[in-house]
Amino acid sequence: MKAVIINFKAYGEGSGEKAVSLSKAVEEVSKKVDFYMAVCPPFVDLSDVIRNVEIDVFAQHADAVGYGSHTARITPEMLKEKGVKGSLINHSERRLRLADIEFLVSKFGELELTSVVCTNNVATTKAAASLKPDYVAIEPPELIGSGIPVSKAEPEIVENSVRAAKDINPDVKVLCGAGITTYEDVVSAIDLGADGVLLASGVVKAEDQKRALEELVGLR
Amino acid sequence: MKAVIINFKAYGEGSGEKAVSLSKAVEEVSKKVDFYMAVCPPFVDLSDVIRNVEIDVFAQHADAVGYGSHTARITPEMLKEKGVKGSLINHSERRLRLADIEFLVSKFGELELTSVVCTNNVATTKAAASLKPDYVAIEPPELIGSGIPVSKAEPEIVENSVRAAKDINPDVKVLCGAGITTYEDVVSAIDLGADGVLLASGVVKAEDQKRALEELVGLR
Amino acid sequence: MKAVIINFKAYGEGSGEKAVSLSKAVEEVSKKVDFYMAVCPPFVDLSDVIRNVEIDVFAQHADAVGYGSHTARITPEMLKEKGVKGSLINHSERRLRLADIEFLVSKFGELELTSVVCTNNVATTKAAASLKPDYVAIEPPELIGSGIPVSKAEPEIVENSVRAAKDINPDVKVLCGAGITTYEDVVSAIDLGADGVLLASGVVKAEDQKRALEELVGLR
Amino acid sequence: MKAVIINFKAYGEGSGEKAVSLSKAVEEVSKKVDFYMAVCPPFVDLSDVIRNVEIDVFAQHADAVGYGSHTARITPEMLKEKGVKGSLINHSERRLRLADIEFLVSKFGELELTSVVCTNNVATTKAAASLKPDYVAIEPPELIGSGIPVSKAEPEIVENSVRAAKDINPDVKVLCGAGITTYEDVVSAIDLGADGVLLASGVVKAEDQKRALEELVGLR
Repeated sequence: MKAVIINFKAYGEGSGEKAVSLSKAVEEVSKKVDFYMAVCPPFVDLSDVIRNVEIDVFAQHADAVGYGSHTARITPEMLKEKGVKGSLINHSERRLRLADIEFLVSKFGELELTSVVCTNNVATTKAAASLKPDYVAIEPPELIGSGIPVSKAEPEIVENSVRAAKDINPDVKVLCGAGITTYEDVVSAIDLGADGVLLASGVVKAEDQKRALEELVGLR
Repeated sequence: MKAVIINFKAYGEGSGEKAVSLSKAVEEVSKKVDFYMAVCPPFVDLSDVIRNVEIDVFAQHADAVGYGSHTARITPEMLKEKGVKGSLINHSERRLRLADIEFLVSKFGELELTSVVCTNNVATTKAAASLKPDYVAIEPPELIGSGIPVSKAEPEIVENSVRAAKDINPDVKVLCGAGITTYEDVVSAIDLGADGVLLASGVVKAEDQKRALEELVGLR
Repeated sequence: MKAVIINFKAYGEGSGEKAVSLSKAVEEVSKKVDFYMAVCPPFVDLSDVIRNVEIDVFAQHADAVGYGSHTARITPEMLKEKGVKGSLINHSERRLRLADIEFLVSKFGELELTSVVCTNNVATTKAAASLKPDYVAIEPPELIGSGIPVSKAEPEIVENSVRAAKDINPDVKVLCGAGITTYEDVVSAIDLGADGVLLASGVVKAEDQKRALEELVGLR
Repeated sequence: MKAVIINFKAYGEGSGEKAVSLSKAVEEVSKKVDFYMAVCPPFVDLSDVIRNVEIDVFAQHADAVGYGSHTARITPEMLKEKGVKGSLINHSERRLRLADIEFLVSKFGELELTSVVCTNNVATTKAAASLKPDYVAIEPPELIGSGIPVSKAEPEIVENSVRAAKDINPDVKVLCGAGITTYEDVVSAIDLGADGVLLASGVVKAEDQKRALEELVGLR
């Protein structure tokens, strides 16, 4: 099943009560389609979202430390106890050091959390895939928030990333992660070999979030 | 009323279900004494703690951004909506840039959130106090986690910090924040002019947290 | 004597051989005017610039550590040994933590290096001035690189910063640091109470650097 | 020819005039042995070292930016113009984000600078090797500065890293980079498949640097 993962970032439209209502909308839509749909609300909303929906809930980030004297850090173990399914790692707005990405992917494996490592081009996708995460999500920086889907602006980045990733690690899944706003974008990403999409503003900042979701998955 | 604020850090003993149970213990103790007592659980536990206790709940940190495209960041507005009372700012394990401390203190003022700016010596306490936060909390780095109370090892740091802070800003409250573990430590901090204490491992890592709390506030 | 300090940043036009030739141009101009003029080339060019000019040479940054196991860090002691006069600290493109600013200002005092702490508004200027650096340089972020001089766009920031800084520390000198490109800008900054200016692109990126320098100091 | 690369870090014993004298000692020793020997002095000493020796000089770090408005950053182009041979990248004391490592390795390729990417275990070595740097240097964090050579404490890390790196990229050279202090350590690293060693304190902090160097390469 192809994946549609929605990152709420720190948008006001995806925080607090709106994190819960948007997650409910995603859940509702997910029941009508053949996509695996999941949400990534802010840390402070994880608990409230998890109590209110049954779809998988991801964190937007985890810190590369264990329990301990680390004020304000969120450890993989905390996320596991909270009931999240996994987390984005190395998002373009929260880039991590290579050693920390490796620590997190490895720790997530132990804890049975799903790791989604974000990357910015073919070379970093290959490097990330070699760490054996569950997913890599390609987000070319020049396309983020541009409304231009990576699958159209640079289809060869998607194709080459999918190939490079699967050459190194046939089990890794590849998400296409920039500029996705329409069902057509989703379909073309999948046609290029992607196992799904990671998106944010296209849904969260939409005037009508529910409608944007339905359009995205081909219900309209 | 003198303040006792407890930072749960990323300790396993103050995370998840234990964040809630420890907060309940603090609440119970607070009813028997003449201290203002508050807790600082991890971001992911704020919501669950707030639903379970009536004492004030603080975050351990806030990011110096507003709502927007900031994956994994926690804005002051998010904290406000969640119902927290305020936050630590610039904790020694999460030091911030001067411009960001200023942004946060100023934004907290607008949102009526309580700001507790951590500092490491007399000079930085003075600089922090000039930004007009509600509290400054002095934690000399060499004493953190040492079990040696700042009020004993370096009483002049407390005295001079209190004086420097209040010279610049008579309204600011000063917390003593390193090595506090006993009631005697709390009393000597107050005798040196402090408006309270900020502590962590002394309670959170104690074998018997409830007992450690009671000792701390003079109930044993 | 009013100061004109020129930050070469990482501009190609102020690096390598051009760091030396631009520094020579500044030296030449400085002989004809009644300004204290100094340059801030990249770390790797400090040595070559110092061997070639007699004007004061500043670093663009120093790291808040002493000699030791700190790969790629540049300590205040290294700068001192190299013969620099001082350094920018906390430039808007290299913001530092409050504790690190304090460490550097204090260490610079011991080593008799001149400290120029950059700030972004009245409140941070006041906080920085309380640390007793030699200079504070105000650069409102919205004006950096804008070509709009802070002394015109927001004259009250300059006036209030000068007042706030000197209230806390009468000995501190205040530089005006954003958007300065003409002699008129320099004069109006000084009229508002500034002890000089800190500038970068206006000279370094000018088509004719020498001419831009001469205009800046009123020689044309 | 096997490589011996010496990182001067920010040690006082490898800074300023001592950066030059230590580099001269390395040069002298290098003439008597069949090793490729190179030095990594601090940024501010690169120019003086390069003017005084003919062996290859590396930087300890480069910033992942081009020429521009980046105060205090050192670009690959600056290093090239200065005459350095290459640089360490991602040293354990200066860890970089994956995207920045990739940017630097790729830019170094264009500029014909030699890239030495430091890593901390087998998985990150593999990821780094996939980016096609000239060298990877394995430094298990627990052994750095311990005096325990990685080739002895964890020989399988060296063997597995060499194998993992060369599987992905047969051209990459692998350095062994922690705890090397004796000729025996160098030999055992090479026996495990390494193409050389990267070391620091063993030479720079030695009471007699020249003697330590001679011992290291088997001259004593």
